Amino acid sequence: MTIQRFTRALIPTVKETPAEATNASHQLLLRGGYIRQIGAGIYDFLPLGLRVLRKIENIVRTEMDRAGASEVLMPAMLPAEYFQETGRWDVYGPVLLRIKDRKGGDYHLGPTHEEIITDMVRREVKSYRQLPLNLYQIQMKFRDEPRPRGGLMRCREFVMKDAYSFDIDEAGAVKSYETMREAYRKIFTRLGLTFRIVQADSGAIGGKTSAEFQILADSGEDAIVACDNCDYAANVEAAEVAAEPAASGTAAGEIEKVHTPGKGGIVDVAAFLKADVKDFLKSLLYVTDQNELVMACLRGDHEVNEIKLANAVGAREIHLASEGDVVKATGAKVGYAGPVKFNGRIVVDPSGAAIASAITGANETDHHIKGVSFARGDYKAEVKGIRSAGAGDRCPQCDKGRFKAYKGIEGGHIFILGTHYSSKMNATYLDEKGDKKPIVMGCYGIGVSRLIASAIEQHHDKDGIRWPMPIAPYQVVVATLGNDAAMMEAGEKLARELEERGVEVLWDDRDERPGVKFKDADLIGIPLRATIGAKTLATASCELKRRDSADPKAFDLIPLAEAADRIAAEVKKAMV
Amino acid sequence: MTIQRFTRALIPTVKETPAEATNASHQLLLRGGYIRQIGAGIYDFLPLGLRVLRKIENIVRTEMDRAGASEVLMPAMLPAEYFQETGRWDVYGPVLLRIKDRKGGDYHLGPTHEEIITDMVRREVKSYRQLPLNLYQIQMKFRDEPRPRGGLMRCREFVMKDAYSFDIDEAGAVKSYETMREAYRKIFTRLGLTFRIVQADSGAIGGKTSAEFQILADSGEDAIVACDNCDYAANVEAAEVAAEPAASGTAAGEIEKVHTPGKGGIVDVAAFLKADVKDFLKSLLYVTDQNELVMACLRGDHEVNEIKLANAVGAREIHLASEGDVVKATGAKVGYAGPVKFNGRIVVDPSGAAIASAITGANETDHHIKGVSFARGDYKAEVKGIRSAGAGDRCPQCDKGRFKAYKGIEGGHIFILGTHYSSKMNATYLDEKGDKKPIVMGCYGIGVSRLIASAIEQHHDKDGIRWPMPIAPYQVVVATLGNDAAMMEAGEKLARELEERGVEVLWDDRDERPGVKFKDADLIGIPLRATIGAKTLATASCELKRRDSADPKAFDLIPLAEAADRIAAEVKKAMV
Repeated sequence: MTIQRFTRALIPTVKETPAEATNASHQLLLRGGYIRQIGAGIYDFLPLGLRVLRKIENIVRTEMDRAGASEVLMPAMLPAEYFQETGRWDVYGPVLLRIKDRKGGDYHLGPTHEEIITDMVRREVKSYRQLPLNLYQIQMKFRDEPRPRGGLMRCREFVMKDAYSFDIDEAGAVKSYETMREAYRKIFTRLGLTFRIVQADSGAIGGKTSAEFQILADSGEDAIVACDNCDYAANVEAAEVAAEPAASGTAAGEIEKVHTPGKGGIVDVAAFLKADVKDFLKSLLYVTDQNELVMACLRGDHEVNEIKLANAVGAREIHLASEGDVVKATGAKVGYAGPVKFNGRIVVDPSGAAIASAITGANETDHHIKGVSFARGDYKAEVKGIRSAGAGDRCPQCDKGRFKAYKGIEGGHIFILGTHYSSKMNATYLDEKGDKKPIVMGCYGIGVSRLIASAIEQHHDKDGIRWPMPIAPYQVVVATLGNDAAMMEAGEKLARELEERGVEVLWDDRDERPGVKFKDADLIGIPLRATIGAKTLATASCELKRRDSADPKAFDLIPLAEAADRIAAEVKKAMV
Repeated sequence: MTIQRFTRALIPTVKETPAEATNASHQLLLRGGYIRQIGAGIYDFLPLGLRVLRKIENIVRTEMDRAGASEVLMPAMLPAEYFQETGRWDVYGPVLLRIKDRKGGDYHLGPTHEEIITDMVRREVKSYRQLPLNLYQIQMKFRDEPRPRGGLMRCREFVMKDAYSFDIDEAGAVKSYETMREAYRKIFTRLGLTFRIVQADSGAIGGKTSAEFQILADSGEDAIVACDNCDYAANVEAAEVAAEPAASGTAAGEIEKVHTPGKGGIVDVAAFLKADVKDFLKSLLYVTDQNELVMACLRGDHEVNEIKLANAVGAREIHLASEGDVVKATGAKVGYAGPVKFNGRIVVDPSGAAIASAITGANETDHHIKGVSFARGDYKAEVKGIRSAGAGDRCPQCDKGRFKAYKGIEGGHIFILGTHYSSKMNATYLDEKGDKKPIVMGCYGIGVSRLIASAIEQHHDKDGIRWPMPIAPYQVVVATLGNDAAMMEAGEKLARELEERGVEVLWDDRDERPGVKFKDADLIGIPLRATIGAKTLATASCELKRRDSADPKAFDLIPLAEAADRIAAEVKKAMV
């Protein structure tokens, strides 16, 4: 093997923070010479960036293979006929990048490959004997995102691992799904990432057929909650909430009307009345896709989850009523709606129904009412969970723990597709009796290039990246300070000894000041740095520094004679 | 590791030869379950196909890295501005697949990446200290070929390795070129292919800055000649031809006119006159791009090389004169032109000029003349090499050997670009004196997915593929005949022992007749087959058969206790 010298590599580090980059990973990928933009959401991977990408790919590949999946490779340029067959050619919209070939034929770039893999399987699979089957690929995907952003976080051309499972029935599909869930758990663990397996939908099957792998990071776009006691985690939108205990009592006194002039917002009214926001019964008017008006009531500090509300009232879609509709329905300006004496359908969240004595709108401009009790029958409503979960909520799974709130980056998504594609595309098999049946599918994605950015969001400090060992572009950087013959010889010797032990090493052989070399090593984020200076060389030793050390000044002084063995052992230990 | 069982793999072999496939590799790739077409020139790689692709990629990658090149990855979807900068956006024509994004911006899919890599380098390289640099990628390329054909031979989406070198001057570029030439030689050798390094142009620099790596195969589209004595090889169109000795004598008698009624073609006239075609001086009229009429004369059995002819007369382009022009210039119908008394510019090939007594057209319909001698001055002409080389021609390099003719498939192409792109795109560096200079580039391609097809064209028989060991999808297939517990146990044990020794093994565990398993193993082309049948199991042994054995019935009977070690040793030996 040839030793990778810094002077012969293309690692163009940059001191200044590029103006166009707002998140840490985007800034550090540019500054560390990992990627370069050539168009909106379109990037060159420079040598360091590609090394990290390949490392992630290889971990993904190994675990997919171990889970019994077979790797294939489908084209990126796809004839329109497959998406036309399922109708997606028409409904996909501008995200789909369309092409005309020289004969005027319709093509598009693959944003995902359900149709293509279903076509492959319907052609080759005839019998139940050939199932189950799990096929995956690691490939460039193309989506014309409306707002590409965050460097590798949301690109128009990006690397994805997409896998598809094929089973004879739903039970088989669930088994394939569980196998993938476990493989994903291993993948994300081996990548050195802190993550949560998150329930992503609150659909009919109880969320057991869909999960997201969320990488925890403050800059994440997804709000998630996770139990502090069990492994339950969910997107805030999808999280179930444990039913609160029924109202402990009823309001002591009668309903009392209070004058709250010009105080529409709950926080303002609460301040004005010197009351707790949690004592308020917030009431919002919605209109369904069937044009039904619905009042949603919930505790003052909670938020409506429109998906849950739509499910609760049996609507496909739902939106907030217009100001005019509110005035018409309540007889009051917006901000004064309430369930008491409201003439229409009302849904109340259990935590709202549980308020013993609530303050709510009086359906009269500039007025609220106090002392309202659902238990006493002050108003009639359907009690259904319609609110988004938040920190502090009780866990619906263990019924003991409380939710903590996190921000997450979606790194993977697994779900059971059922027969959606196989039915439309006639992908069937003959069962043991010779009956034709649709194949039951599952689908499993990992945003491979996004994981590069996600890992950095989770592993960086003010000086640069702090790569987890398994995905670092190099495991060790050997920095030689000075370039006299003895120094160069010592540096090359250590680099070579490390390579002979299977360690991936970058030798910073540049004619640069120590400060420049240290700053670059920290920026690039190589986990271990072995420095040979004039003083250490005089004592035949080197300084070993760890990028993730809590004390940035800490190092071990190691005899050069032992350095390669000790460093190799440390690298091996850090490979999960 | 999990053992790959045939029953859990997607290897859909097919008995019938698909009608759409005309060449052997296309047929066998389809029949062996390696690839499937989803559109014209667009293919799915099934698991076996992808395994071969990855093996080739890895050999290419290893040798590129050893040669000091750094791997990068550029996008496939490219903003138009880069090709616009060099003018290729306008001149590339319909081969370029163009895209409009949601904002109406112009993009295209990358057919090659000179502009993008030049942009990368001009942004990051400032000083001579950063040079030389060699960057490469292995990536899907897209070209809207007018006639995609031959399976993986000519696709619209295909895998290419493209490398680009950057040097301070021409001498450096030549050095980079030589390094790549040597790396390519290693790559093609390690792939187990028989190839020739072929001179591809007959340009001014003597062809030393451009070479093709041609894989020899009867089905190849490129005609090449190679010396039987030295390493000279060239495309027929580009091959130089050693100067023939001057005419050994002159015609014995006077020029004699003969009547050759209705005999326009040389073969017909030769038969009619009972003469050898080699005694004919063939005369063809051409028109240059400057509208000059030129007569090209050469021996009757030779062919005009229009590139050489154009170079010889100083034209950029040249085409055959129209019938009308021929009549006008010679006073005779087409087929009776000759240099004697022809009033215009004449170029004669040395081998034509060397004919002692030639037969040629009389410039009179239905008449030829005999006894024509250039040495005697029967006609005046410029003597220049204007013919294509062929089998039997003397080698211009060693001046001893003779050419043999081959058919070849272009597997790789290396050439020096000079400053073509760097000048247009302002990719410069500062030299030691601080002067700005253009970077000198080279460019080096390998058609990675085409190599799959090429290897099969070279390595197959009537039963299927015969993979060279280094690129076989699996190195060994273990075939168990029968599926009782003892047999399955023996098969799994051998497969596992092989895997533990680093051998890539496919276990044919199907419930199929022996004949089906043998036929599939031959078709797929795994180099070694270890068969365990009831009889061999009774004696604790297996039959080891080699796919490339001259005798298809030959096998070794090996004790199962020794099988894994012996097979592993044989595999290791076969890995070049």
